[in-house]
Amino acid sequence: MQFELTKDFIDEIINAIENANDDFLIEKLHSLHPVDIAEVMRIVNLPQAQYIYRLLGEELSSEVLVEIEEDIREKFLESLSAEEIAESLEKMYADDATDVIQDLPENIQEEVLEAIKDDEHSSEISMLLNFDEDSAGGIMDVDFISANWNWTVANALAKFREQVEEVDHVYTIYVVDAQKRLKGTLSLKRFLYASDETLIKDIFQKDPISVGVDEEAETVASKMEKYDLVVIPVVDASGKLLGRITIDDALDVIKEEAEKDYQMASGISEKVESSDSLFVISRARLPWLLIGMLGGILGAYVIGFFEGYITEHAVMASFIPLILAMGGNVGVQSSAIIVQSLANNTLNYDSITKKLLKELFVALFNGLICSAIALVFCWVTKSDFNLALTIGVSLVAVFTYAGLFGTFVPLILNKYNVDPALATGPFITTTNDVVGLLIYFLIGWALYF
Amino acid sequence: MQFELTKDFIDEIINAIENANDDFLIEKLHSLHPVDIAEVMRIVNLPQAQYIYRLLGEELSSEVLVEIEEDIREKFLESLSAEEIAESLEKMYADDATDVIQDLPENIQEEVLEAIKDDEHSSEISMLLNFDEDSAGGIMDVDFISANWNWTVANALAKFREQVEEVDHVYTIYVVDAQKRLKGTLSLKRFLYASDETLIKDIFQKDPISVGVDEEAETVASKMEKYDLVVIPVVDASGKLLGRITIDDALDVIKEEAEKDYQMASGISEKVESSDSLFVISRARLPWLLIGMLGGILGAYVIGFFEGYITEHAVMASFIPLILAMGGNVGVQSSAIIVQSLANNTLNYDSITKKLLKELFVALFNGLICSAIALVFCWVTKSDFNLALTIGVSLVAVFTYAGLFGTFVPLILNKYNVDPALATGPFITTTNDVVGLLIYFLIGWALYF
Repeated sequence: MQFELTKDFIDEIINAIENANDDFLIEKLHSLHPVDIAEVMRIVNLPQAQYIYRLLGEELSSEVLVEIEEDIREKFLESLSAEEIAESLEKMYADDATDVIQDLPENIQEEVLEAIKDDEHSSEISMLLNFDEDSAGGIMDVDFISANWNWTVANALAKFREQVEEVDHVYTIYVVDAQKRLKGTLSLKRFLYASDETLIKDIFQKDPISVGVDEEAETVASKMEKYDLVVIPVVDASGKLLGRITIDDALDVIKEEAEKDYQMASGISEKVESSDSLFVISRARLPWLLIGMLGGILGAYVIGFFEGYITEHAVMASFIPLILAMGGNVGVQSSAIIVQSLANNTLNYDSITKKLLKELFVALFNGLICSAIALVFCWVTKSDFNLALTIGVSLVAVFTYAGLFGTFVPLILNKYNVDPALATGPFITTTNDVVGLLIYFLIGWALYF
Repeated sequence: MQFELTKDFIDEIINAIENANDDFLIEKLHSLHPVDIAEVMRIVNLPQAQYIYRLLGEELSSEVLVEIEEDIREKFLESLSAEEIAESLEKMYADDATDVIQDLPENIQEEVLEAIKDDEHSSEISMLLNFDEDSAGGIMDVDFISANWNWTVANALAKFREQVEEVDHVYTIYVVDAQKRLKGTLSLKRFLYASDETLIKDIFQKDPISVGVDEEAETVASKMEKYDLVVIPVVDASGKLLGRITIDDALDVIKEEAEKDYQMASGISEKVESSDSLFVISRARLPWLLIGMLGGILGAYVIGFFEGYITEHAVMASFIPLILAMGGNVGVQSSAIIVQSLANNTLNYDSITKKLLKELFVALFNGLICSAIALVFCWVTKSDFNLALTIGVSLVAVFTYAGLFGTFVPLILNKYNVDPALATGPFITTTNDVVGLLIYFLIGWALYF
């Protein structure tokens, strides 16, 4: 199944929908992976997507419903009765069903839960609904294979045959005590080699890496990433095994976090995609633009204060963009390095003072190089040594300020448990604009005017 | 094993090293996961890390060597003989051994390969060394469990007992034909339920999702992510099963890509961490600063051209920062959305014209809001309607230009297979600075001077 979604394929599908060519559509769609059907439904418009959905049949439609994007899914669910939704949920694993049911208004959630015929399934979903979406409990699934440590190998094999019915991928066999408390894992290797009468207790591996059900999803994801885990068991406060988290769910958390940081650094305040509506995209972009406006207006006040001098020395205005660009770039660079190191836990244990000292040297090093270029350029082209000196000294000062500020702010935010990514992008550039201008004109006032 | 690395723990370790308290160190270190030992070794200095490494013993030291960061590992390897390295490699899986040996100079690579006693192991490593590091072959491992489709269930179980010896985690059992060509996968569920005489041929699942050995690592990673796969088989051109890629290796690729994009957007030209040396960090940051310098100098020329007017209307200089900030922010926002959509394959099939049209509306929408605020502010505070009009019109023009340029450049780069992330950050802001100034002063010239 090496399928690639092309524009031609989409055109074929849309064409078939318009001509109500159901046989063709059914044949094409059933040859696709549910993930690809969900993607086709994302690209076509809503009525077309609904047309496709109706052709999928019970089994496939519930598989596609799991994969479909949240905002499209919500609209589908609106057009279905509680009984129809319940029927789809019965075919899903409890964690997938929970993700779907979470999109519904609370009163309909209850209706749907009551309409689910399998009581165990509906109570599993109810339990999962109680956990915070961003916690380990919110991303775990409750289907796994476990062995009581008092079982024999032969006994365990028989029990696995029953349990495996409910589980999609096995990955790891967990070992629990009589109270269902997690004790360890069973290696397939040792299991396959052991004699029928061996007790699980005598061949299992102790001390598995596990997470508490209330731990943050982000913590879980970085733990799985750090230890290269494909699956991690989830326990409650008493150590009882509740479920497991597979790496695909953790991967979603990791990606979302990285994208959020990138968007924040780019001045976008809520997660958007290029396919979102005009209004959603505009709204996500407006807040930082308004902050930028405020910065620009404050900058106007700073420069306005020196307006008299500019009338005499208009050349000072020419170098405003240079000063602003360098302050902005240095600030973004230094904050990005800190934010990324914080996100990856690769920050070392140096004190904040030591980190600032290091940034001071980097800023001075690059600042002196850039300053020397600017100084020579100014002197040669404008034949005005005092102006050249003003630009050169201002650049070093702005580099130093911007580098230190860009390092300090995310470290301080992190110390007080505020997301350091807030400090990146427009915030740093806006602040640096205002302070940079102040530095530039004060130095100009001292050395030039 | 719920270990968290604290500053106190590191201090204890460093203290023990300084006092040569080997017993204490051995006890502490052997209670840690190899990943955590590698992390301790990253945080302490090199001689301290070497001290720790010598205390680990053969088994653990080779496990730690796999987990250790590349630049520290290189230095360790320098102090070891080819025989010592070979001994460590023999205890590793072939793909891990390949990662380690890749850090060595080529002549030493050969020496080490010859020193490996297990011929099969050394030829596996040699084979893996031939693949491009950024291809499927470069990140796959060659240990997996497979069944010939002509085997019976009983026969397969016996063979699995032999194969499992070599494999760390099983995840999936692959089904191959007599020529070792990948035919499908074997579900544990159906295997456990089948009678001893059933042929694998009659119970396996056809058409597994697989990747070619030469496919780019990035393509593999996004395929695994899209289909929620924990492991994916790798085949050669004839369909022969060569190896498998597990999600932890794909995750590294995904993270690295996201980090590269973020760093490019922040004007950092090579991957650095806050713990890197002053010189490395300065060097990574200097290129974009020099480009920023160039932009600033071009900006100075643009403004210099209007110097005569500024002498008369110094107030025009006051609003330079506002114009620059808004052009920069809009450009970064629009390019970030496109770059991220391209990276996630969530771009829809609209033509470039349609995407530009959409950005035009977003830019106009936000531009008119910001422009109205600026116009009223200017008019009220400066009582100068022509100046207010100039600022207002300039802002709308700059928003439009910056939004369209920020959308267009990454789309075009992507079309010609250049990394669109190149278009973000300093490149967009630098270009927008120069063009934004030109727009501002030309509109000022038409409406105000």
